[in-house]
Amino acid sequence: MKTLRPLILVTNDDGITAPGLHALVEAMKKIGDVAVVAPDSPQSGMGHAITVAFPLRLDKVDVFGSVLAYQCSGTPVDCVKLAVNKILHRKPDLCVSGINHGGNSSINVIYSGTMSAAMEGAIEAIPSIGFSLRDYSFSADLSAAAHYAGKIASRVLTQGLPPSTLLNVNIPPGSRDEIKGVKICRQAIAKWQEDFDERKDPNRRPYYWLTGRFTNYDKGEDTDEWALSHGYISVVPVQFDFTAHHAIPVLNEWSF
Amino acid sequence: MKTLRPLILVTNDDGITAPGLHALVEAMKKIGDVAVVAPDSPQSGMGHAITVAFPLRLDKVDVFGSVLAYQCSGTPVDCVKLAVNKILHRKPDLCVSGINHGGNSSINVIYSGTMSAAMEGAIEAIPSIGFSLRDYSFSADLSAAAHYAGKIASRVLTQGLPPSTLLNVNIPPGSRDEIKGVKICRQAIAKWQEDFDERKDPNRRPYYWLTGRFTNYDKGEDTDEWALSHGYISVVPVQFDFTAHHAIPVLNEWSF
Repeated sequence: MKTLRPLILVTNDDGITAPGLHALVEAMKKIGDVAVVAPDSPQSGMGHAITVAFPLRLDKVDVFGSVLAYQCSGTPVDCVKLAVNKILHRKPDLCVSGINHGGNSSINVIYSGTMSAAMEGAIEAIPSIGFSLRDYSFSADLSAAAHYAGKIASRVLTQGLPPSTLLNVNIPPGSRDEIKGVKICRQAIAKWQEDFDERKDPNRRPYYWLTGRFTNYDKGEDTDEWALSHGYISVVPVQFDFTAHHAIPVLNEWSF
Repeated sequence: MKTLRPLILVTNDDGITAPGLHALVEAMKKIGDVAVVAPDSPQSGMGHAITVAFPLRLDKVDVFGSVLAYQCSGTPVDCVKLAVNKILHRKPDLCVSGINHGGNSSINVIYSGTMSAAMEGAIEAIPSIGFSLRDYSFSADLSAAAHYAGKIASRVLTQGLPPSTLLNVNIPPGSRDEIKGVKICRQAIAKWQEDFDERKDPNRRPYYWLTGRFTNYDKGEDTDEWALSHGYISVVPVQFDFTAHHAIPVLNEWSF
């Protein structure tokens, strides 16, 4: 009797050509059958955007050898929806997103296309993980991140995840020797302090570049920021029930 | 001594010309000084997207009489960032988003540009509320929604909100007489069952429209879906700490 290998859907937000996607595909090939559906262009900062005003293009591409791969004109969330509902003939056993070029710890989980793709997988009841390397360079060393992506993905395939949760995994930059270990964390309380860079176009009309400075307000040693700045990989369990349950009794004292 | 009126930032995701935005501006004018920064085009489904690959345009517009108003080429989240960091000279006392043409209850909070704008306000430590009318028509009767938006906004201005929470307010369609009241709720467990509509372009190449059917799996009478389908306005407190805190002990039993 032949045992079916696990089916692993791989996507990202940096686009089909990103080295991080290729490293993740290689890591997942060791533990399952891989299918890739990824954006045809970079989609960083897309959050949980979906494409409703335009139709989507979807094209089969041959960039991963024997691995089934499609590029899509939409967002990371569109990619997961198309994969699950249009392309794959059975539900994936795992959905992984990344390896993102740049960190998605703390508040960045909210803006991240990488994490939104994983969240969409989780909404589809697929165990899902987003992987992000805290290094924006496309030439960064991905070997430690790929190694731990394989380890964590194998563990999730074996043990599953608590219902309605996904994992936000961030990897500090550097080599495998430099990684101190893996820490289960909570999302640090942090925010971006924006600073718009105002410029003038050739017609003297102003335009603005979004720039900003990340500020961590959280001194906790149980946060993803603490783990990453101390050389650990951070693993934050994430949920898509956004209800602030603790606030319900407070609001119930209001009357209208 | 002159008391400063509260400063209220108003935005939306349907764009600066949407009737829902105009109804919300009128309702807020009764309780404070209003400033509008809204997208120059519809941004439904944009989730928590931000614009990082392109610069933003920002233009002062005269569409609300004496009310300071800008249109922005970016997403709803970009609008809030620009308002707080570039346009307004003091921090708003309240940030309201909507009135969205279409509901944002249950899982839709994740995809909604309306709610992401409110969430961005909350991240900036501004009491924030998203308002959505469960009627997609631009000619829908907005009077009940505007009336309750005023009531709920006044209450939030007086009492504040629990730290790091915002409100997701959904209003059922119909007139004020038909509204049975306001219920504090949790986000219902529900999802979209996608169904991509495949068509061929004039060159015979396929393209796909995202369509879907909303399915509520949640029988709870404390959910936003229950409230709305029974004629109540639903108010869900929402948080931007996405950590699944209950899953941390489970994952701590894993070892790597």
